[in-house]
Amino acid sequence: MPTLWSQSLIPTLREVPAEAEVPSHQLMLRAGLIRKLGAGMYSYLPLGLRSLQKAMAIIREEMASAGAVEVLMPALVPLELYKQTGRDEAYGDNLFRVKDRHGREQALGPTHEEVITEMIGATCGSYRDLPKTLYQIQTKFRDEFRPRFGVLRSREFQMKDAYSFHTAVDGEGGLNETYQKQYDAYCRIFSRCGLPYVTVEAESGPIGGSASHEFMVPSPTGEDTILESDKGNYAANVEKCEIGPRKFSEIFTNAHTLQGVGTHAQESIGVLPAAPPTGELEQVHTPGCPGIEDVITFFKKNLGTKLKPQNMLKTLVFEASLKSPEEVKKEHEFEAAHTPDERQFVNERFFVLAVVRGDHDVNEGKLKQAVRAINPDIQTVALMEPHDALRHDFIIGFVGPHAAINEPLTQLIIDPDAAVEQFWVAGANEKDHHVKHFNWKRDLLDKLTNHDVKGNDDRVLVTDIRNTVDGDPSPKNDGGVLHTRKGIEVGHVFKLGDKYSKAMNITTLLPDNSRMHPIMGCYGIGVNRILAAAIESDKGHDENGIVWSPAIAPYRVLITPIKFDGRAKDLALKLASELEARGGNPGPIDVLIDDRDERPGVKFKDADLIGIPVRITLGDKALAEDKVEIKARNGSNGPKGELVPITDAVNRVMELLH
Amino acid sequence: MPTLWSQSLIPTLREVPAEAEVPSHQLMLRAGLIRKLGAGMYSYLPLGLRSLQKAMAIIREEMASAGAVEVLMPALVPLELYKQTGRDEAYGDNLFRVKDRHGREQALGPTHEEVITEMIGATCGSYRDLPKTLYQIQTKFRDEFRPRFGVLRSREFQMKDAYSFHTAVDGEGGLNETYQKQYDAYCRIFSRCGLPYVTVEAESGPIGGSASHEFMVPSPTGEDTILESDKGNYAANVEKCEIGPRKFSEIFTNAHTLQGVGTHAQESIGVLPAAPPTGELEQVHTPGCPGIEDVITFFKKNLGTKLKPQNMLKTLVFEASLKSPEEVKKEHEFEAAHTPDERQFVNERFFVLAVVRGDHDVNEGKLKQAVRAINPDIQTVALMEPHDALRHDFIIGFVGPHAAINEPLTQLIIDPDAAVEQFWVAGANEKDHHVKHFNWKRDLLDKLTNHDVKGNDDRVLVTDIRNTVDGDPSPKNDGGVLHTRKGIEVGHVFKLGDKYSKAMNITTLLPDNSRMHPIMGCYGIGVNRILAAAIESDKGHDENGIVWSPAIAPYRVLITPIKFDGRAKDLALKLASELEARGGNPGPIDVLIDDRDERPGVKFKDADLIGIPVRITLGDKALAEDKVEIKARNGSNGPKGELVPITDAVNRVMELLH
Repeated sequence: MPTLWSQSLIPTLREVPAEAEVPSHQLMLRAGLIRKLGAGMYSYLPLGLRSLQKAMAIIREEMASAGAVEVLMPALVPLELYKQTGRDEAYGDNLFRVKDRHGREQALGPTHEEVITEMIGATCGSYRDLPKTLYQIQTKFRDEFRPRFGVLRSREFQMKDAYSFHTAVDGEGGLNETYQKQYDAYCRIFSRCGLPYVTVEAESGPIGGSASHEFMVPSPTGEDTILESDKGNYAANVEKCEIGPRKFSEIFTNAHTLQGVGTHAQESIGVLPAAPPTGELEQVHTPGCPGIEDVITFFKKNLGTKLKPQNMLKTLVFEASLKSPEEVKKEHEFEAAHTPDERQFVNERFFVLAVVRGDHDVNEGKLKQAVRAINPDIQTVALMEPHDALRHDFIIGFVGPHAAINEPLTQLIIDPDAAVEQFWVAGANEKDHHVKHFNWKRDLLDKLTNHDVKGNDDRVLVTDIRNTVDGDPSPKNDGGVLHTRKGIEVGHVFKLGDKYSKAMNITTLLPDNSRMHPIMGCYGIGVNRILAAAIESDKGHDENGIVWSPAIAPYRVLITPIKFDGRAKDLALKLASELEARGGNPGPIDVLIDDRDERPGVKFKDADLIGIPVRITLGDKALAEDKVEIKARNGSNGPKGELVPITDAVNRVMELLH
Repeated sequence: MPTLWSQSLIPTLREVPAEAEVPSHQLMLRAGLIRKLGAGMYSYLPLGLRSLQKAMAIIREEMASAGAVEVLMPALVPLELYKQTGRDEAYGDNLFRVKDRHGREQALGPTHEEVITEMIGATCGSYRDLPKTLYQIQTKFRDEFRPRFGVLRSREFQMKDAYSFHTAVDGEGGLNETYQKQYDAYCRIFSRCGLPYVTVEAESGPIGGSASHEFMVPSPTGEDTILESDKGNYAANVEKCEIGPRKFSEIFTNAHTLQGVGTHAQESIGVLPAAPPTGELEQVHTPGCPGIEDVITFFKKNLGTKLKPQNMLKTLVFEASLKSPEEVKKEHEFEAAHTPDERQFVNERFFVLAVVRGDHDVNEGKLKQAVRAINPDIQTVALMEPHDALRHDFIIGFVGPHAAINEPLTQLIIDPDAAVEQFWVAGANEKDHHVKHFNWKRDLLDKLTNHDVKGNDDRVLVTDIRNTVDGDPSPKNDGGVLHTRKGIEVGHVFKLGDKYSKAMNITTLLPDNSRMHPIMGCYGIGVNRILAAAIESDKGHDENGIVWSPAIAPYRVLITPIKFDGRAKDLALKLASELEARGGNPGPIDVLIDDRDERPGVKFKDADLIGIPVRITLGDKALAEDKVEIKARNGSNGPKGELVPITDAVNRVMELLH
């Protein structure tokens, strides 16, 4: 049964709504797919919901063929469950909290690891009950600080979240097998939805290896950064992306260097020769200039020097501790109230000065990995707050690497690109001051004595601790160069390990009567994002509106009678019913008929805006010749479309939809 | 593709869970359809979700054929919207409130009249845009004080809520037309789901007439009371149900009677002759006995009198006011703090003594109708709080009808069954006292003077103001007798009028350039309740478990190989694929295969428990004869089922499913 436009609710807009910054948001509002109800809260109008449901149907089919079974968990989850795994704290203000009439606390679930882990724990007590892969498609909630970009970052959204449970990582029924099945299903889902996606390696899970992948749709408006090797054999997100080997000064290859923390031994590409100081170490008064940009501006304005970020050392102060983040917080509160004897902490914590070049950014994931290579028992690696740092004489904004000299509980971790001798400006370890002509050997290494850091005699480590930037060498070490582009994350698969089953003390009986915490994977798709990303992608829109791919278009065919009466009306209904009767590949054909009493120009403009793949126009002139005009929205049959005899119309439409 | 039992999650239980009181709740837990997460919060496991989705699919089909278009509104709704219509107060503690990180208040939507009214107001400014019927199937939230009966009264549930908007009540495109379409669609939906439903008249909307219907599934465990005439031509819920004409004493047919407030003129069946007093009016000390039951117990214990509720008058004190409930509340606060001059309120409010027999209950809906027949401008009719009543000398618990004598601002409204002369015990209008031998003529009518109630000289009105009870005469006045039974409400259609569009000041332009508040209807179905009611109904379960009707069964066919290997395994997969290939009426055939390595007894018990309509058992003995055992769960092919040649199996299954 075709839908009549007048019966549906399709409030198209001529103007671009002021609030909408990105094309998908603008077009979803303009084409009447969604309507804003409040900050980050959108109603799906008929066209938007149809596309959403089509994406959901594709997901359901592919989940079933990957052996996943659908369930539906409540949106309201007792907060207690999130407390068991510490996720109430981890989510913080992003978690919507709801107190009920009896004063009990619930959360509106952002994801459901805890709920499903409890469920599996209660129902699958034996290895014979596993593996299981369950999923749901459900409304999720996240109290974003700044919801934006329409449904790309909203506070209420539709998510497909799957969870798998195993007694082994490898082999039949193991995590790796299911991970691969989900990965493959994701590829099929995004392909079928017509998304030009790329798969990137993401931050590794606790099991190690390549344990996490993101599915990204490249788009200049994406919030995520993707790095791809120009050799086409590597892609990762910026949090995860490794950098190929880089040379650094030979002075670090002596006693002060710990090699091999990253995946790539730095030796393999040799070292740079040591270089003499560029001048005497000189203190510069830089009042109120804590940041890289501040210093550059100050140098230009007051000293007439054109300083570049590449000539500055950025030194960040982290604290590494054997204790949990919560305990570290308590220690800080204690310290703030007392005059602590620092020595008492010697075996429990140390400070880390992370040094990168001024034009680079520290990657906390890589830094944590490096710190844990020094001491695997470290639980917490956290950037220090200025007031906490100050108690240990680190003056945030003005810290230089040589702060380590007088603070024996300090580990230096230097990125290779910063571990060279050249002209350097660095913090002076004095408020409102920097130094220039900093020289690693003269001003740091020669003055440093080695002691006090537990489990490691060396106080200096050179390894990859920064975010990758455009032009970096590929970690494949094959001469490939990494290039960045922006992407929209539409899916994420993740090997969780036993993080949740352990925290919730869920166990499964093994054949030998011992018990284990089941191993988990989780697999998410942002269903709303499929729509937005499809529109946002290259072929998803043009200057006139949306260009849907047939699989997730609200309707596959739009029939536009210039006037909805007489022969045109009869023919519209007849063609619709013939089209709808066509089943099979590419699936059922659904038809929208523009029955409105509007001028042709309005109808055509709206047709382009809502982007239905094929439009059949019924005009008097063509009908007099027993013809209709057929036009593919993506331009595949020309900018003007084509005149087709009525008797061939249905077949021609089917061809265009393939 | 058939589902393998081992791949799904079907945690059947042998024992009846202690928390579950009603059959549907017990069986939904035992058959592994749902799992409790918290009070009134249930996860749908694979079998439960499949049934839920089948009910949803039926609803979607029938909504489409009724011309309704699907949308999806957010669950989180700015509280401000509910404030505009006063529903934040009306819902009170039943509304989940959520404060976000910026301190803004949201509600978790229990229904979405406000959201959709705003949407229509913003997008359908002209009569040309109407009518529209939109619906959604969505997770709804209600903070029930005492969630119970599993998914029948939960705090999070699935609801289909439809809303229609019109510029007229009658004619093409009017509210009545859409109301009828929805009503008819509901009948088709519940029929297709196999529910033995009845349709009952419910409380009328502001438009009057038969403006609301409920769809009920009769069940002894239902929370609603249905009344049906034994003539089969009338059914209503207890709030709405009218009572046929009843005789009352001729003394009320004089000046003191206002006739015709109810639908049935009382004259038509004549009156009872006046009767003399049963004795002198006598005061009885009834210390601490305010209620009917208290007084009866007291009479029995202290006076040795076997008093019946039918011999007592129950007198409730209401306040009728031209003002809104909020303003009335403020007046009470003012009064409590001051000594008011009652006369100042003479034109704005009066008191109502509602008198029914001791074994009857006042129906507030009927009482309000009666009060508005006296003065149509009355906004508020509310039971008085004891402390407010006391300021006007009404001693709640001990009020008798003769309290009206000394309180001229009082209207008496008497139910016909109480308006007869017999032996009566009533309140004495004195704390801890009742009277006996109360006689309407002697003790009230003869002492009453008529004045002071605005718009009506009469202080006494006899009309139907009570809830119907089993045995009452049918309002059809055809000799029919009303009988009660319990029911589960699964659907409700309602003519809303302009209540919401007016409160939110939403208007539509009419052809004559005037504007009107669009007229609305709303139409709800509790989707979860379809499942529970189906199980709860007569044919929906037996002592062994659930008996699903094919349309909403999780699977239509269960194949139970005694051992899932060799020929049985091959045949199971072959039969499944043949069955699944059968399309059309009664829709796709989905198959579950019990591949577990369990004893036959366990498999058969579980099969009966989960209630799949047709089971095919593959056992060695039958297979040796090239036969399988086919058994319909509802017993239609006998308690033992039948042996069928393998080659006939698929056809036989299809027959049994019809």
